[in-house]
Amino acid sequence: MQMKAVNLGQGFMNFAPPDFLNEAARETILRTDCSQYSHPKGRIRLRKALAKAYDPLFRDRTLDPETEIVVTAGANEGIFAIFAAFLDEGDEVILMEPFFDQYIANIEMNGGVPVYVPLRPQGGPNATISSKDWTLDIDELRSKITPRSKVIVLNTPHNPIGKVFSKKELEDIGKVATENNLLILTDEVYDRLYFRPNTHERIANLPGLWERTITVGSGGKTFGATGWRIGWLIGPKELVEAALAAHVRIVFCVNSPLQEAMAIGFEQADAHNFFENQLELYEQKRAYMMSIFDDIPLPYTKPQGSYFILVDMSKLKLPGDYEFPEIIQNRGYDFKICYWLAKEIGVVAIPPSEFYCAENRHLAEYYARFAFCKTDETLKQARERLLKLKDHI
Amino acid sequence: MQMKAVNLGQGFMNFAPPDFLNEAARETILRTDCSQYSHPKGRIRLRKALAKAYDPLFRDRTLDPETEIVVTAGANEGIFAIFAAFLDEGDEVILMEPFFDQYIANIEMNGGVPVYVPLRPQGGPNATISSKDWTLDIDELRSKITPRSKVIVLNTPHNPIGKVFSKKELEDIGKVATENNLLILTDEVYDRLYFRPNTHERIANLPGLWERTITVGSGGKTFGATGWRIGWLIGPKELVEAALAAHVRIVFCVNSPLQEAMAIGFEQADAHNFFENQLELYEQKRAYMMSIFDDIPLPYTKPQGSYFILVDMSKLKLPGDYEFPEIIQNRGYDFKICYWLAKEIGVVAIPPSEFYCAENRHLAEYYARFAFCKTDETLKQARERLLKLKDHI
Repeated sequence: MQMKAVNLGQGFMNFAPPDFLNEAARETILRTDCSQYSHPKGRIRLRKALAKAYDPLFRDRTLDPETEIVVTAGANEGIFAIFAAFLDEGDEVILMEPFFDQYIANIEMNGGVPVYVPLRPQGGPNATISSKDWTLDIDELRSKITPRSKVIVLNTPHNPIGKVFSKKELEDIGKVATENNLLILTDEVYDRLYFRPNTHERIANLPGLWERTITVGSGGKTFGATGWRIGWLIGPKELVEAALAAHVRIVFCVNSPLQEAMAIGFEQADAHNFFENQLELYEQKRAYMMSIFDDIPLPYTKPQGSYFILVDMSKLKLPGDYEFPEIIQNRGYDFKICYWLAKEIGVVAIPPSEFYCAENRHLAEYYARFAFCKTDETLKQARERLLKLKDHI
Repeated sequence: MQMKAVNLGQGFMNFAPPDFLNEAARETILRTDCSQYSHPKGRIRLRKALAKAYDPLFRDRTLDPETEIVVTAGANEGIFAIFAAFLDEGDEVILMEPFFDQYIANIEMNGGVPVYVPLRPQGGPNATISSKDWTLDIDELRSKITPRSKVIVLNTPHNPIGKVFSKKELEDIGKVATENNLLILTDEVYDRLYFRPNTHERIANLPGLWERTITVGSGGKTFGATGWRIGWLIGPKELVEAALAAHVRIVFCVNSPLQEAMAIGFEQADAHNFFENQLELYEQKRAYMMSIFDDIPLPYTKPQGSYFILVDMSKLKLPGDYEFPEIIQNRGYDFKICYWLAKEIGVVAIPPSEFYCAENRHLAEYYARFAFCKTDETLKQARERLLKLKDHI
């Protein structure tokens, strides 16, 4: 079968950022000051816009744009800078599985050692569950603590599960962090993408945790412009300034015209009701995706946030004599599922065992991750193809 | 005295990039594919444009855009990625003084140890010399080699001296590199800025040296757009792919709309005779700067390339009772010179002892570096002020 596969793999939009953001960039491109270096901390207009946008999200804290916010070359570089700043050789970083795969190299390149603890799905097999049913065993987390434990990485809303951690869960994690004097790196790049009636709780807002937490944000996720490579770190002065010192050496500063445009984007977002409209759009896309898998039917994890849906493919019957390429022979079964999906059904998904350490990879081997940050037309095309799975279960 | 100082300090332009580049960016901003992630190697259109632009500069080599070119988040991130890729704990990196100050942290953050060898000015004191009169003692270089030597960093055209290394000098350095199996990192971000009749020789073009050399380039320097944060690495597959593996983890990819615009910029540059016109502009600015110091007079190093001029301020008589702030008391004498210049003459310059290790700092203590990548109006203002130095020598 030959056809161009519908790409629900990597999590980038195939639609444009909002017009008001693009128009802002078309203006800033023409400004001489925006064509040259920006301050390594980030352009002051963007830092002020971030402070204004995030103050209410941090329980009316008054963020200081001079010391508590740094603009980074995407959230990725921000995370790299945090590990560069805080890890000494052999320091351990606790990650929850499944994890965003860049974390591992970011930790190891800076001398750290990843330590894994899985989120485990509760409820019976072959049942559609909520992402909140993927839970962390807090005793299992505690069992991973050693004298070398330095950082714990949290990701909420979570990629690829879509889990939005509850206040109780964050309190439990925060307690472990406090008792063991861990730095909390909380990757909240999907913080504008959680679905009603869920609320996004921030661990930095819990009593006593601001002081040990750096929150990572993403302009690409916030405005649907992943190619602009603008992210940010928010936290207390001592932590943010250490990360800044690394960031200055890694990239010196972030591109200027798009930074300035994103500042304008934040300034104008409310007038366009942008964040609410965007959320509504994603709620519709999520509902559409869930209907596809309900109709096949295949069980899945209903995401509370992010733009991913994790589907349980264990009912899928791959043809016994199907020929898989050499390169995926040694990978998890989910690589076979995703290879077959792309080739025979014409839909690209991501095999989530990528997001596990070797030991725990089996936990993911019957799942596939589908991104729904795509146009309605793309999702409709995907639906037509995915319904063919009826013949294979 | 209270006035806004004329800033000839940091090396960024205070004029706009060419209109055709800005116009290209205004178009790419509107393209959906340019608003999302690019390939970690860089956008293919830019890699192809780079291959086309650089093929003749690499003696008609046919660069492979798939394996021999990587686009980085500014030259800085490219250099960081090289050190991340190649340095093991304790590996030594040989630098020539004066050096671009970011190198040191880039090396040390990746476990390396900087080793210093100075360029020394030849000719008597108080004489205007050419940047070619700053020379490397090749025996002194050899004396710095140890079993841990791993990389040698070259910078030509050189910041802050403006030196363009001769073919003979590059051959000598290349010989040391070959004999000791060193990787050559050649920072050639000013490779479009060398002044006739000088020619820019590339160490990668010397027999047998391509295989051990990574050349670093800069879109910011090439197009006068330092705020776009686009750089590139060019070299043999094995070396570039190792740097790419680090780059992917550090920033994932570079901002998309400005990358695509810079590809268009390269495509259109010849039709606008851009590189020749830009060079002529800088030749005029250089001549103007030299006339200022001829008229005072103060001796200086006539730069063969780059947009810096290094001025010998040893004749300058600072008032004996002048009060310098605490913070510069422990720095080189050049910090006092530059502080006084900014406060009393109203011109900001950079103290070049920043670009030396502590041991060799005294070599730079009577110099100041002035950047001339500024509008004619700014340079004229600087002239008026700098001529007041007549009263202080």
